[in-house]
Amino acid sequence: MLNNHLNFIESQRVGRFATADAAGIPHIIPVCFACDGISIYIALDAKPKRVAPRQLKRIRNLLENPNVALVLDHYSEDWNELAYVMIRGDAALVEIGDAEHTAAIELLRDRYQQYRTMPIHEQPVIAIRPTSVVAWGSHNPS
Amino acid sequence: MLNNHLNFIESQRVGRFATADAAGIPHIIPVCFACDGISIYIALDAKPKRVAPRQLKRIRNLLENPNVALVLDHYSEDWNELAYVMIRGDAALVEIGDAEHTAAIELLRDRYQQYRTMPIHEQPVIAIRPTSVVAWGSHNPS
Repeated sequence: MLNNHLNFIESQRVGRFATADAAGIPHIIPVCFACDGISIYIALDAKPKRVAPRQLKRIRNLLENPNVALVLDHYSEDWNELAYVMIRGDAALVEIGDAEHTAAIELLRDRYQQYRTMPIHEQPVIAIRPTSVVAWGSHNPS
Repeated sequence: MLNNHLNFIESQRVGRFATADAAGIPHIIPVCFACDGISIYIALDAKPKRVAPRQLKRIRNLLENPNVALVLDHYSEDWNELAYVMIRGDAALVEIGDAEHTAAIELLRDRYQQYRTMPIHEQPVIAIRPTSVVAWGSHNPS
């Protein structure tokens, strides 16, 4: 599902991740992410937060309502160059001890050296399982 | 409500706008926006779309469920510089003929010269009425 967009996805350093609670109230934050070609992974970092990861609104939302959306986009003042890929899907928490958790942490640390000294391996990882992808604009889907 | 964050808001050229349908399924796209200090305005441009503006998913969602979220953020490879402002609120369509519509189109065209030659005045404008603002990170709320 992501195959036609992997180059664009990999070219983006930050995405914006939307969840909604059971009442349908959206929440959106910028996130770093990594992709293995099938799922998208987002780390939880407890350190700078005042609350435990499972108390974060994004986590409470996805436990209540697994429907999520992630947008990756390119902005330019030349609007002929605008482009985005919106990925919708179901989100799950991948727990420590799962082989997928180890692989996701490795992907995230490969992509962001900033994560190599942060204890993201001590937290679950959010996995987005895409169910639909919408691409718009000027990027070559390749 | 936005007063403490106006400098940061104005410094951003693109935001990401989340809506959710009645079933709570989120949708998210990058948007250009203008702010009058109270509301945030987003133009609808019919031209590059294959569907009429009222058929756009973001519009159908906000007519079903007015709860929306907009995030404005700054990304840097120096993660000490990361910052975002998430604005949640209710969205409404402001119709042609309303004085607020005229003012919003003017704000949008002041901020984006690209809009000056686009017929955005022939479409309603999305207005976000903020109900909560969350700010995180390094920006000075000023």
